[in-house]
Amino acid sequence: MSIDSFTMSPLPAILFGAGKAQMLPQTLADYGRLVLLLVGERSLQTNPVWPKLQESMEDLGLEVHIEKITGEPSPKLVDAIVEDYRQHDVAVVAAIGGGAVLDGGKAIAAMLTMEGSIIEYLEGVGSREPAGTKVPFVAVPTTAGTGSELTCNSVISAVSREGFKKSLRHENFMPDAAIIDPVLTANCPDKVSAFCSMDGFSQLVEAYLSSKATPMTDDLALGAISRLGRLNGPLTRICQGKADLADRTAMSYGAAISGICLANAGLGIIHGFASVLGGLFPIPHGAVCATLLAVCNRVTLTKLQKEQSDSVALQKYARLGRIFSNREKASDRFYQESFIEMLIELTELVQPAPLSSYGITFSDLETIAVQSGCKNNPIELDVGERKEILKELL
Amino acid sequence: MSIDSFTMSPLPAILFGAGKAQMLPQTLADYGRLVLLLVGERSLQTNPVWPKLQESMEDLGLEVHIEKITGEPSPKLVDAIVEDYRQHDVAVVAAIGGGAVLDGGKAIAAMLTMEGSIIEYLEGVGSREPAGTKVPFVAVPTTAGTGSELTCNSVISAVSREGFKKSLRHENFMPDAAIIDPVLTANCPDKVSAFCSMDGFSQLVEAYLSSKATPMTDDLALGAISRLGRLNGPLTRICQGKADLADRTAMSYGAAISGICLANAGLGIIHGFASVLGGLFPIPHGAVCATLLAVCNRVTLTKLQKEQSDSVALQKYARLGRIFSNREKASDRFYQESFIEMLIELTELVQPAPLSSYGITFSDLETIAVQSGCKNNPIELDVGERKEILKELL
Repeated sequence: MSIDSFTMSPLPAILFGAGKAQMLPQTLADYGRLVLLLVGERSLQTNPVWPKLQESMEDLGLEVHIEKITGEPSPKLVDAIVEDYRQHDVAVVAAIGGGAVLDGGKAIAAMLTMEGSIIEYLEGVGSREPAGTKVPFVAVPTTAGTGSELTCNSVISAVSREGFKKSLRHENFMPDAAIIDPVLTANCPDKVSAFCSMDGFSQLVEAYLSSKATPMTDDLALGAISRLGRLNGPLTRICQGKADLADRTAMSYGAAISGICLANAGLGIIHGFASVLGGLFPIPHGAVCATLLAVCNRVTLTKLQKEQSDSVALQKYARLGRIFSNREKASDRFYQESFIEMLIELTELVQPAPLSSYGITFSDLETIAVQSGCKNNPIELDVGERKEILKELL
Repeated sequence: MSIDSFTMSPLPAILFGAGKAQMLPQTLADYGRLVLLLVGERSLQTNPVWPKLQESMEDLGLEVHIEKITGEPSPKLVDAIVEDYRQHDVAVVAAIGGGAVLDGGKAIAAMLTMEGSIIEYLEGVGSREPAGTKVPFVAVPTTAGTGSELTCNSVISAVSREGFKKSLRHENFMPDAAIIDPVLTANCPDKVSAFCSMDGFSQLVEAYLSSKATPMTDDLALGAISRLGRLNGPLTRICQGKADLADRTAMSYGAAISGICLANAGLGIIHGFASVLGGLFPIPHGAVCATLLAVCNRVTLTKLQKEQSDSVALQKYARLGRIFSNREKASDRFYQESFIEMLIELTELVQPAPLSSYGITFSDLETIAVQSGCKNNPIELDVGERKEILKELL
């Protein structure tokens, strides 16, 4: 297996493990005094780590301004917070929350140094290129899924029938530090944890199978999948609502690695669909990933088996199957199929709602199929094939 | 297998693959006009990529000052070059060469922003702490071994009977970009390539077995070892002097990953010995790694088998053996032993000289054994055991 050329974007300092959240105050103090802290809808005050964090920040003399990111960050919300803080001398932006809060914080940290509205800089929407400047940004995830703590893009949503989910992206928008404390995810409702895990797991699988995969992303992704997977491993227990701290730790690790991998290898058809669906309809991102995971992989695998029987992607599907199988020395084909079966079982555990439950009708499918990209999927699925997938999931 | 807490230092942009050296001029130009370029003893002009590089640098209007690093960088050499350039407004330091040249460049980039002699800042030698400031630094390796392009320390040597090899180290001393072009290593003599590969391979194995190993370093190290290893793979062909570009690419990848892994997981007894031996005697670093590799691992494994039969390190030794073995379903013990046998075979291919050939005598062994650390070795080897290893290799 020869090694092709690749590039790998810079990575920030990663502080990982139970209790690491307590490193946040000192990390912030290293940048200066005035902190803009973004938090989520559910009050951070309910999280048992908060009182000690707050005390440490006070002890260090930090001036902490707290703003809420409610729902997925919209251009309007980002612009409003940026407007309020542009004249302040914000030393560092921090975000403690799920992927939406982290993406919001990442966008705000960048926009504080840029002119105009964020909408002018969004990929496929605006016409301006971000120069890559930003205020230092520290990401502290409280869910394990999006991996936003280790990506260089911020997904901004304007949800409507003419809506979008698009990225503010620049290599320099990678957070300056990622503090990943699995204890913070314990506060997350089981159902949300399960959907988030499907998002993170799908990102690992999509990046591993991506046509842009590199040896570094392959080894990291496969390692994270192995730690999540195996028979009845952490991923299964999270989907069953039976996760303990060790399971959450494996998922926090997997989510963070999925961020690194997607930033460097890209994603496939599942996230191609998810961003279009999430822009047009009010569907939680993790939930839609769970809906799509098994079927998109089944269709991709079947087409690969028919048309590219000697492809690297097929070997990779077999390798994925081997991680989750208790059979030794079966054929590649057996492992490929068993991986899909495992995905179906996972999907049954989390029971995602069908697409129609979000108001999607048959007449929407053409639009969604046309708009959804699949550029890094291991094999191209055309509009007709994409529409068939959506129909099956309606 | 649960995931323990870890920290991971920041990583720079990595440009990897045949032809990537041509990205150097633009990478440098992004920092400014005045470039201090460090090169090795063997004239860079003999390298076929040089004329085009030089032309591109001229086209971009760069003012390039070239200095040579001959041999392993000494405090005197670093101080002299720094003295010459302190008053210049150096925009970026670049180093194209083997590990010694990269370490020299890394040290010079840091010292350009610091007062006094480098000797004052060396670990275990000086009493001052580097603040972590430096001029931007770009590393371009022409050998595949030390991984210095992705480490945050610079090994400085003052070789004599009272000598040392010690590090200038700070998380911020990681290069700002690593441009890793395996084509550049084709100019390296076969014997040097073989010794370098033993250094890089040993670093991967030591970091994988390290008591400070993390999931990220484990997955990256094991992936790189798998790409190098397997039966009659790139590593064997390099040691035989039969490497083609694909083999060199695998080794350049392995060396780079070994840098990431050692920076975050540390190294074991082999590099513990190598730094002391290299400070006291004029032994090329790769050669001494080759001398030590098999015996140090045999002694470590034997002690683990006797005293820690259920250790993670023993499972890891078995996993390493499985990579290089063509037998399936053998016992862990079988794979552990077969890994050592493979190391012995590799050693026979490269035929490193015995320690006595560098002027080391029996009476030196006590001093070497006492001075050599083994803090991250999977099991502690005491002074007596360390002396026994040296005796065997005399």
